[in-house]
Amino acid sequence: MKIAVLPGDGIGPEIVAQALKVLKALNLKLDLKEAPIGGAGYDAEGDPLPDSTLKLAQESDAVLLGAVGGWQYDTLPRDKRPERGLLRIRKELNLFANLRPALLYDELADASTLKPEVVSGLDIMIVRELTGDIYFGQPRGISTLPNGEREGINTMRYTESEIRRIGHVAFNIAMKRNKKVCSVDKANVLETTELWRQVMIEVAKEYPEVELSHMYVDNAAMQLVRAPKQFDVMVTGNIFGDILSDEASMLTGSIGMLPSASLDANNKGMYEPSHGSAPDIAGKDIANPLATILSVAMMLRYTFNDEANAVRIENAVKKTLSQGYRTGDIYTEGCKRVKCSEMGDAVTAAL
Amino acid sequence: MKIAVLPGDGIGPEIVAQALKVLKALNLKLDLKEAPIGGAGYDAEGDPLPDSTLKLAQESDAVLLGAVGGWQYDTLPRDKRPERGLLRIRKELNLFANLRPALLYDELADASTLKPEVVSGLDIMIVRELTGDIYFGQPRGISTLPNGEREGINTMRYTESEIRRIGHVAFNIAMKRNKKVCSVDKANVLETTELWRQVMIEVAKEYPEVELSHMYVDNAAMQLVRAPKQFDVMVTGNIFGDILSDEASMLTGSIGMLPSASLDANNKGMYEPSHGSAPDIAGKDIANPLATILSVAMMLRYTFNDEANAVRIENAVKKTLSQGYRTGDIYTEGCKRVKCSEMGDAVTAAL
Ligand SMILES: CC(C)[C@H](C(=O)O)[C@@H](O)C(=O)O
Ligand SMILES: CC(C)[C@H](C(=O)O)[C@@H](O)C(=O)O
Repeated sequence: MKIAVLPGDGIGPEIVAQALKVLKALNLKLDLKEAPIGGAGYDAEGDPLPDSTLKLAQESDAVLLGAVGGWQYDTLPRDKRPERGLLRIRKELNLFANLRPALLYDELADASTLKPEVVSGLDIMIVRELTGDIYFGQPRGISTLPNGEREGINTMRYTESEIRRIGHVAFNIAMKRNKKVCSVDKANVLETTELWRQVMIEVAKEYPEVELSHMYVDNAAMQLVRAPKQFDVMVTGNIFGDILSDEASMLTGSIGMLPSASLDANNKGMYEPSHGSAPDIAGKDIANPLATILSVAMMLRYTFNDEANAVRIENAVKKTLSQGYRTGDIYTEGCKRVKCSEMGDAVTAAL
Repeated sequence: MKIAVLPGDGIGPEIVAQALKVLKALNLKLDLKEAPIGGAGYDAEGDPLPDSTLKLAQESDAVLLGAVGGWQYDTLPRDKRPERGLLRIRKELNLFANLRPALLYDELADASTLKPEVVSGLDIMIVRELTGDIYFGQPRGISTLPNGEREGINTMRYTESEIRRIGHVAFNIAMKRNKKVCSVDKANVLETTELWRQVMIEVAKEYPEVELSHMYVDNAAMQLVRAPKQFDVMVTGNIFGDILSDEASMLTGSIGMLPSASLDANNKGMYEPSHGSAPDIAGKDIANPLATILSVAMMLRYTFNDEANAVRIENAVKKTLSQGYRTGDIYTEGCKRVKCSEMGDAVTAAL
């Protein structure tokens, strides 16, 4: 198992260290190599995605990423900023399928700002297209018009084949879950997403057991608040997926718990927590490493086809929670407050 | 007061009738003329925005709109669909400033899916740009590539002056509220919104009393769920505003209560409920007319500068709620369940 380890910025290094602790405890044959990305890449090589880091990632079977970003990089020119490293590695590795579960752990039901009856048992899988859409479409940029004022332009763009391949990912995942796919678009206004809808309808014909529904993005943003348990798998484009997956993850109240996977057509993948680099708490050993640990479980499942060990990690996390271990972000009275590294130890012990 | 009355489709006619009942009870000098829009426009003239309707709207000081849309129109060619009438009237009348309050009525606090402590007292004003962005940007459409596959394209586009004028609207509103503006963008990825952020910073200099903050759209979608009371005025572009304003309105749990205003540079405006045409309950006299009644209050405030009567209507609505009158959508045990027309009578009586 060749794994590129990219700790990145902020709390990245601490949470990745705990995830590796858990991974190593499984006694698998591992080839782990570390490289800088994001602000760390800029500091080391003047580039948020150094060539050597990209090369390592390309030669590996999977990538484990911590997080990127920090205040000190906010004033850098656009192409040097940490996020650009993230966007570039997604594109270069062709990681078009971003899987972001929004799962509520029974033990943490109180952490949600929503009423318990609305979210208890919540289990949504958001499938977000990750290498197309307005994130990458040309033309783009800021220019000056003849009348002297500036204008900004970006281009939303999807081809049929891009839509089709993410559609298949969503339907395949639905087949292993509750066989429901909700495709989110704005087909009443945007032609790009009218094509999206047409192609999803075509793809659905190959999965007669799966029920396909369509929802406008504004309604989806409402329904996630109103009745989130109506959803099984949601599939949508890059920008709508960015917004809705963050909204959905916050429904659980514990974004420090949520992993993500970004896959290419051959299940090579990059795995990272859904949360960010949290520079305000970096270096204090108080971050929640569980999302990163659960990202390792996703890596075993999707890239290495090792369902048994994926489930072992997931069960160890659940056991740790039921034993009452909590980092600060998910702490409630009566529980055992632990540090990031202690949480890593607890999960390892629970394995 | 020249007012164009456009009842539209579904529950539109019933709720508009109640709003007019309340308006007429104020004994103002009214010149009301009715015309069809949306599906009703298509049925009457083969066009979701008939020329005569547009002309009437142009010649009026304000427009009162019910709602547009219905299943029977879903299979029409794109430019005949009800929504196109809505988009065209916004554009033709230059209604660039869409104001959508998300306000929680104490009496209805239980209706929210969020915990009471998270939403009690919620009062956000969302200012959404309404005539630019990816809604109207060219080029757009679906075409066939040389390799035979289809591609969809839409263009996000904002000029400095478009951003500046909506910025001023937001800051002026904030001056009358809690003096906080949160501008929502995706400046870390989209250049259009990088320009948006720059211009907002420039506009803010003219309002030294107002505190400006910036938030990425994905984070905003999260923060609305996590801690919505942190917001006073939110300002954002057309597509992000479409998504976030619907999300925000659902936080209150009673979208049947929320009005909206769409204004041009001279405070001419179109006023409509935030909810849709609800074809499933149309014609049954059970819809909630309060959002439309409150839209009339906004009309008096913004277009006719009649704050006194605006407040009179708003207080009458509050009184009606505290008297226990409820339509089905906001009904809870112990209240008086009333029909749409009875609710209109109750508000009129409370005036
Ligand atoms: C950091 C940013 C570029 C990124 C995105 O918008 O894709 C992030 O929000 C995410 O969802 O992974
Ligand atoms: C019906 C649709 C075109 C419209 C929009 O997207 O603007 C609606 O969602 C709204 O928010 O008024």
